[in-house]
Parts: sequence; C-alpha cells; structure tokens
Amino acid sequence: MSRVYNFSAGPAVLPLEVLQNAQQDLVDYKGCGMSVMEMSHRGKDYDAIHQEAIATFKELCGIGDDWCVCFIQGGASMQFAMIPMNFLGKDQVADYANQGTWSNKALKEAQKIGNVNVAANCQKDIPTRMPADGEFKWTPGAAYSHVCANETISGAELKKFPDTGSPLVCDMSSDILSCERDYNQFAMFYAGAQKNLGPSGMAVVAIRKEFAEKGSQAIPTMLQYRTYTEENSLFNTPPCWSIYIFGETMKWVKKMGKENLFKLNAEKAKKIYDVIDGSGFYRGTALKEYRSNMNVTWRLPTEELEAQFIKEAAAAGMKSLKGHRSVGGVRASIYNAFPMEGVDCLVDFMKEFEKKNG
Amino acid sequence: MSRVYNFSAGPAVLPLEVLQNAQQDLVDYKGCGMSVMEMSHRGKDYDAIHQEAIATFKELCGIGDDWCVCFIQGGASMQFAMIPMNFLGKDQVADYANQGTWSNKALKEAQKIGNVNVAANCQKDIPTRMPADGEFKWTPGAAYSHVCANETISGAELKKFPDTGSPLVCDMSSDILSCERDYNQFAMFYAGAQKNLGPSGMAVVAIRKEFAEKGSQAIPTMLQYRTYTEENSLFNTPPCWSIYIFGETMKWVKKMGKENLFKLNAEKAKKIYDVIDGSGFYRGTALKEYRSNMNVTWRLPTEELEAQFIKEAAAAGMKSLKGHRSVGGVRASIYNAFPMEGVDCLVDFMKEFEKKNG
Repeated sequence: MSRVYNFSAGPAVLPLEVLQNAQQDLVDYKGCGMSVMEMSHRGKDYDAIHQEAIATFKELCGIGDDWCVCFIQGGASMQFAMIPMNFLGKDQVADYANQGTWSNKALKEAQKIGNVNVAANCQKDIPTRMPADGEFKWTPGAAYSHVCANETISGAELKKFPDTGSPLVCDMSSDILSCERDYNQFAMFYAGAQKNLGPSGMAVVAIRKEFAEKGSQAIPTMLQYRTYTEENSLFNTPPCWSIYIFGETMKWVKKMGKENLFKLNAEKAKKIYDVIDGSGFYRGTALKEYRSNMNVTWRLPTEELEAQFIKEAAAAGMKSLKGHRSVGGVRASIYNAFPMEGVDCLVDFMKEFEKKNG
Repeated sequence: MSRVYNFSAGPAVLPLEVLQNAQQDLVDYKGCGMSVMEMSHRGKDYDAIHQEAIATFKELCGIGDDWCVCFIQGGASMQFAMIPMNFLGKDQVADYANQGTWSNKALKEAQKIGNVNVAANCQKDIPTRMPADGEFKWTPGAAYSHVCANETISGAELKKFPDTGSPLVCDMSSDILSCERDYNQFAMFYAGAQKNLGPSGMAVVAIRKEFAEKGSQAIPTMLQYRTYTEENSLFNTPPCWSIYIFGETMKWVKKMGKENLFKLNAEKAKKIYDVIDGSGFYRGTALKEYRSNMNVTWRLPTEELEAQFIKEAAAAGMKSLKGHRSVGGVRASIYNAFPMEGVDCLVDFMKEFEKKNG
C-alpha cells in the first residue's frame, strides 16, 4: 500500500485507522453477517451505530439534551436553502455576513426566500479576510444571523464569533472540531461531513430543540428540521454508511484527544505559514489575523510557477494542492486526519522549490 | 465469514462480489493512494467512477442522450417534494395514483404544493393490489402523472404502465432493473438507491432533459433538477461512496446479464408464491395478478405464529423477514442481489414450519 499525502479540501483525508477498521468489517460487520451498507436502518445493529455516532459527537462538542444532532442529506448546500425556508418568515429579516464564496452562496439562497440584511461584506477583498468586530451591522429582532466559521476557498477563519443579538447559525463545514470553541453560543451549527467529519453525503446539523420547533410547517416534510429532530434522523432511510464512518471518525477524535488534535492542528498550520513568512517567494492569501488553520492558501510569483509547484508536488506524492478553480494559487487543506509527516514533507518541498526557482 | 440471508426491504443485500472488491480497494483505490471516500470530486480518479456509473446505468435502462441521470441526496422521500416543487405550477393539476403507503406519501407532499387529482385509490385495499387499467381517471392537460411501480410494503407491483396522456413520473425504488421494462415511456423515473441499486444516501433520478428544463426556477438551487442535469450532479459534493458502490453494482448487473437476472427474479418469487399457494397455512397479501417479484408478502394464521416464524427463521440465518411495522405479517425482499440459495433455504423452512405448526 502506498498512501499519498492528500491535501484535498473535501472530500478529504480520513484517519487511516478508521479506514482500516472499515475495510476489515466491510463484508461482515462485527460478525453480524452483513455489511453496514446492507443493514435495515430499523434494526438493532444499525441503531447502535447511529446512537453512538450522535452521542460521541455531542460529547466532543460539549452540547447537552437541549440539542439535537441531525444527519441531513444534501451537504451544506442544502442547508443554505433549509435555513431560510424554516426560519425566515414573510415579515422578518435575516442577517448574513458575506465573508467569502460559501457565505455568499448561503446568502443568495436566503435572498430567494425572504429579506436579507448583509451584515458585513468582505467577500471579494484581497488579501482575503473575515469582517472585524466593529464592522458588522446586525438587525435588532432579526429572525437569525448567519456566519461562516472558515471560508475553505479563501483560507480565512473567524477567530471569535460576534454577539449578533439573534439566534446565531454557523456554517462550520471546514473547521468543525478543529479548535477550541464554545458550541453553546449558537442556535444551530452545521457542517458538510466531507472535510473534518467523514465522507460526503450529508451535513451534520446540531440544532437547539427550541429553535427547530420554530421552523415553518408549510414547507415539504423532508425540508423541515423537526422531521429530523422528532424522529432522530430516521424519518426515512438515512445515509447509513456516511453516518457509520462519521461515528468511527468521532471515536478516533475522542481517542486521540481533541485538545491534542487542536494543538497539532495549530502546529501543522504554523509550520506552513512560517515558511511563507520567511520567504520572499511565497505570499499568503489571507490577512495574518484571519489565517485558517485548516485551509492554508498562498500564491507564488507567477501562475506558471504555481502550476509547476502543484505538478512537482503531485509527482512527489503530495496530491490536490491546487487552489479552488475560482481563485487559483495553492491550497493545503490540513484537517484533523491530515498527518504531521505530510506537513513536514510539504514544508521541505516548499523550501527546496523556492531554492530552485526563487 | 458467515454471511446471513438478508431479506431486508432496504437497505438490502448487495452483491457479495461488489462488497469484496470494495473491501479490497477501500484504503487505496486501485493504487491511487487514497480511498474513494477521500477523493476530490473534481479529480480524474473520481470523475471516471462517476461517468462510468452513469453510462452503465443508461445502457442497462436503454435510455439515450435525451436523458440525464442524476444523483440526488435525500432518497425517494426528497423526490416526493422535488417533483411538485419543480413541475406543479399554480394553475395546474398533477395526477397521482394512490396505490399504497409510498405513493400516498408522494401524493401528500404534492398536496402541500398544489392541486392534485387522485387518479385511482386502492391504498387501503386488502388483499393489497394495484389499480386496474380502467380504474384510472387521468386529467386532460395535467402537468404530470405519478405512479409507483412497486409498493414495497404491500407487495403489489404494476405489471403494465397506464397511458396517462401527460408526462409520466414513476417511483421505481423497489423494482428498478428487476424485470423487462420500457424506460422510454416515462418523462422521469427514480429510485431510492438502497434496494436494487446500491447503498442508501441518494436517489438515482433519470429525467428527460426537456422535462427538467420545464422545472421552476423560483425554488432553491439544490431543489431544481436543472442544477443536477446542467452540472452532471457535480454542482456540489455528491455522495461519492454511494455512487461508487452503485456503479459497481451496475457493472455486476451487466456482467450477470440483466435478462438472466430478470429470469432468476421471477423464479425466486415463484418458488415462494408456490409454497404459499400450495398451503392452507400461508396466505398471500396481494392479489395474484399484482404480486411483486421483489417484495413477497404473506400472513400466517395468527400474529403469534408470525412472530414465531420470524424468530425461528432469524435463528436459522434468515434475517429481516418481519413485515413493515405498519402492516405486520411476513415480507421477503428478494432484490437482484439476493441469492437463489437463500430462497431455497426459506422455502424449505416454510414447509417445515407449516408441518410443525399447521
């Protein structure tokens, strides 16, 4: 087996141990005579997987019985629609911070449904960044406020969450459980699973029960949060395999120790940023105070050098370093499961590449 | 390894060969250094999986370039909402046949959106059945008409599709690619993947391009069919693992020969129905002319005997024979991947059980 270093922004690297265990159990899950993919979602074998995944995630986030964790298909993009469909009534306003590509997508879906106030706008700023504290203009009495914790494409991360005065909803697709965070400051937070949580195929949505109950009942059943909160995400057949791998990944996080992973994440990012800052060759994309620890983005002097960098890195076993097609440049996504050795390998390669081409 | 005979209605048994290949490639897919679960959905390794899955399915269904095959998260239940949201305009009517639990769910979601004509209603009939040809009342100029090919719970199957005079949309969740069928008579057909196609986590939706283009543009992006047809189901991150296993399952169908599988399906069902018909002990749930070849449903003289039957069968390695909680009785779901030996085992058990308890 020759595993590569996979810097993909998502779907992304998963813990090797999780993959190896899943491989062993794929045809016959723990002696029950069938694959997790073949199990009735109403049976006791699957039920144990489902319950444990939820319990481990709640424990890791430090959220209690007033919260529900839901598995909702369609990724974060479906959440962009469900949030306003549920919570943005006719005579209401929702506040959205426009901080980059993803929060802009969320905002645009909300504008299709109702009245939106853009609370801050730095979507197109270069260097990329997040809005500063004083920059937000929140609406008193807003139905809710929406922010994106980490913009995967721009490589900028909110280091502190604003006090918005309304229920705060947060897209954490690319930095959930990657650093110390008080999850109880939110009314709802969600993440497309395929970055820091597991494989693609669902969003993991944590929502306060009392917030879910406020949702519209005039919308389709599958788009109401209460359908998931009231039936523990078992109203219809859930994405069982994605939930299984998610649960295994959460157990791995618990076993590794989340504080330990948070520390490693900061160290991994710092190693790359240190090379960027110590060089006249590489140029970080994001303002220093908003630099993401999950998606490290930078430029080289020319697009030709960027293409060469990405190509040579791939040949050396470092894959998917190309920046998002909308912005170019280089991006190293280094989620929880990304190993330190892969960062060391990249850092050595960066130094070598600068020496040769700088 | 001790695989059981898994009669689950869905998620359901998958071809052993598909599972074994997936197991082998789980950590390192064909030497590319990562799992299918970790691959960027914009990369060439995943792209080959995605394209091949679509092409094989289209070939098996015999549908051409005027069709798109879409992978849409949320299963058939999300389709129940998307269909009327896309195609049922304010001043229009949609025709729905109410043939059982699932078509009734589809119908109810449509009623939330617009005007529905119930074209036929045998939802609660016992014995269970499908509407007869002359029973349907179609609306001239309807926006579309909706039928369910096979009611998984009642065990009744439409053997011939009606000429409705409007674009025909069909839920084939539990009998797609299980028998000879002219797929070109539809405007759209769809199936929750977790029965005859692969693991849970998506619906496979085949839709004529010109029908998709008629869909509303006023609804959220993720709920418009054009979002999937125009971007080949790659607008956002698709459920890559489910698509991969779906593609492998389609290749297995092709390798086995679909006509061969169709013949085996009929033989498997006949073996069980023959025991039922030759017995005064077992009683088929569905009228003979509508009997499903995928979900064989029957009753025993008492509920106590049913519980005993299910329990003893499970102890003998035949799992998930319990009828759906809404109807009780016994149900044997015998999809494409269900082996003939499992049917033989069940048939022997049925005869033995009758001898002891009849």
